[in-house]
Amino acid sequence: MVSLEVLRDLATPAPSKLLLFVIDGLGGLPLPDTDRTELETAHTPNLDALAARSLCGLSIPVALGISPGSGPGHLALFGYDPLTYRVGRGVLSALGVGFPLEPTDVAARFNFATVDAQGRVIDRRAGRLPTEVNRQLVERLRTIQIPGVQIFVETESGHRGVVIFRGEGLSDALTDSDPQREGLPPLPVRPLTPEAQRTAEIVNRFIAEAAARLKDAHPANMILLRGFARHPNLPTLGDLYQLRAAAVAVYPMYKGLARLVGMTVLPTGETLADQIATLRQHWAAFDFFYLHTKGADTAGEDGDFARKVRVLEEIDQQLPALLDLRPDVLVITGDHSTPAVLRSHSWHPVPYLLWAATLAPDSVTAFGERACAQGGLGLFPAVATMRLMLAHGLRLKRYGA
Amino acid sequence: MVSLEVLRDLATPAPSKLLLFVIDGLGGLPLPDTDRTELETAHTPNLDALAARSLCGLSIPVALGISPGSGPGHLALFGYDPLTYRVGRGVLSALGVGFPLEPTDVAARFNFATVDAQGRVIDRRAGRLPTEVNRQLVERLRTIQIPGVQIFVETESGHRGVVIFRGEGLSDALTDSDPQREGLPPLPVRPLTPEAQRTAEIVNRFIAEAAARLKDAHPANMILLRGFARHPNLPTLGDLYQLRAAAVAVYPMYKGLARLVGMTVLPTGETLADQIATLRQHWAAFDFFYLHTKGADTAGEDGDFARKVRVLEEIDQQLPALLDLRPDVLVITGDHSTPAVLRSHSWHPVPYLLWAATLAPDSVTAFGERACAQGGLGLFPAVATMRLMLAHGLRLKRYGA
Repeated sequence: MVSLEVLRDLATPAPSKLLLFVIDGLGGLPLPDTDRTELETAHTPNLDALAARSLCGLSIPVALGISPGSGPGHLALFGYDPLTYRVGRGVLSALGVGFPLEPTDVAARFNFATVDAQGRVIDRRAGRLPTEVNRQLVERLRTIQIPGVQIFVETESGHRGVVIFRGEGLSDALTDSDPQREGLPPLPVRPLTPEAQRTAEIVNRFIAEAAARLKDAHPANMILLRGFARHPNLPTLGDLYQLRAAAVAVYPMYKGLARLVGMTVLPTGETLADQIATLRQHWAAFDFFYLHTKGADTAGEDGDFARKVRVLEEIDQQLPALLDLRPDVLVITGDHSTPAVLRSHSWHPVPYLLWAATLAPDSVTAFGERACAQGGLGLFPAVATMRLMLAHGLRLKRYGA
Repeated sequence: MVSLEVLRDLATPAPSKLLLFVIDGLGGLPLPDTDRTELETAHTPNLDALAARSLCGLSIPVALGISPGSGPGHLALFGYDPLTYRVGRGVLSALGVGFPLEPTDVAARFNFATVDAQGRVIDRRAGRLPTEVNRQLVERLRTIQIPGVQIFVETESGHRGVVIFRGEGLSDALTDSDPQREGLPPLPVRPLTPEAQRTAEIVNRFIAEAAARLKDAHPANMILLRGFARHPNLPTLGDLYQLRAAAVAVYPMYKGLARLVGMTVLPTGETLADQIATLRQHWAAFDFFYLHTKGADTAGEDGDFARKVRVLEEIDQQLPALLDLRPDVLVITGDHSTPAVLRSHSWHPVPYLLWAATLAPDSVTAFGERACAQGGLGLFPAVATMRLMLAHGLRLKRYGA
């Protein structure tokens, strides 16, 4: 493992432009009747032509066999070992709703849930509450006041929300109130360190007041909290690598992940074409660009093989515009695989393409799972991405004399 | 490195059946005149056909260049990093003779040796004592009684045996009595911690009494002890992964290794066909099955290339019966290589085949060292095996949000 300290010592400025294009959920699995994955099925002449001029491979986001969430998948691509650097559930939820988390805030994911007359949880998701009802009930929770802290309550979607506690001396060393099983009462939140005692008291008081305000709101008559977390205070890309980094993403969580590592989040439109226009507009002002597109992952999660194929073909059509930016180093990959046949994130290694003037292309001539497996990068850890991009952009000095 | 704690958090029950088939000493090296290894020489149509539907690779049991013993080779396949988790020589010897080691027992390997009139070791192996003589002398050692401890003495084979001390407050923090060189006297056993003082006294008294009982037994007139060790108390597979694990092995050491990680050892017959029948009989009652076959390793250790080829062909003939069990995930590999041309365990990566419905097969169409090197798993650490099997059996939750 190359530590961030070693990389920081090696980093040096250079005029190169680096572009990391993350196609969320890129990797897939074959349909049994065609033996072709989504990417192997899609007609992607531009990606294939680029692959022929590139180094290809399959990247492992966390480790063989591990299915990453969006947090670990992106941290790896940004150069942070996701087994060392962890972003808690509460923080990701806050980022996901676009909440401007401050370094000392404590955030927790919550579910609206149903409890019976004895206070036992009988439905951890309150009948999969409609988002609109969630919003109304969140308004009630926003009326809770506890001296010494500011409390922010936000709807995510369905039965899910996020609560943020802001104040002096708060700690995230707290156990969950979610018992994770039905038939049990919610658990009292307990401190894991002496310093967390006061925060636990505040949170338990919040939960009690929430229960009182939700008493008549069956089936959403309780909340269950989990994943207490603080901003991970990662060293920023600018500090580590002496570069100006910008993100062009549509969904709040990815903007939030970019902010966590110190990127400037550029305002943009809804489509990939809009996003590429945004890149062009800001091309002179930054050195490193993170471009994120979500559609392939959503189609995969929906189990919609044909739509994922279509999304990939649409992405392929935008590739010439992306190449027109003339990046010096370009990586195209995913943060994880999302095979439509599994309808979820998976552990399968992710197709990967690295283009730069400073490399010798391998013999891969198509951008797909099994073509990339034959590539010059082989099967390799995604956390090497930032190092590889910096190196190919001549932004890393020699290690050792 | 993915810690066992991380995996424990991710593990979740599922209905899948996982089968790990360990062909001991599987990997080999080519004969110079044919340029084919044992596996490349053997006619294995069933393994080849399965390879064509699988992901193949070469697994590294410990690290490139390291030849593993059976302990590290198996620990890696069971998911325990063999550089972190170590099973002492004394424990492996006890397992090897089928001794039911208890958690607080202290075990040591011993050699019968020859000392001269001045007490110097002149033959560390007592002229490679016949096993039958070993058994007779072990009977003498079993008469030794020391207050406060129970002592068990067992023959391994040739000049080798194992002694187990059982009692309260014993420690394995002891130096060896074996000086490892001839011309020196046996060393007094010294405690490495204050708590081990009493155990050292007991062991030294045992050695003195053994010397007295062996005085007239030239050339086996002394014993040399090494590798004091206790049961490693590994977290079990059941505890880590919420699965019921069973082992079907013929040789005691492999049953012992399986017990170390919490498997139920199923009684079985002598042949691979018997073992597969045992699997079938218990198929409903367990989730994870470890099947071990020894013949390829023994042939390799004997330097018998042709016999190793024959053993592999016999294994291939049993494959259809194994596939008839319809495992959801199947791994076929070895715990290490044992090339007949080297007559010993070796460091060479081991042919590896992973089959599941949840993967895309690679282009490998034969099960052999150089075919597997072209496989989708590439060259990868054997310790990923448990993670990969769990993932492909849909038994691991997503890592991180």
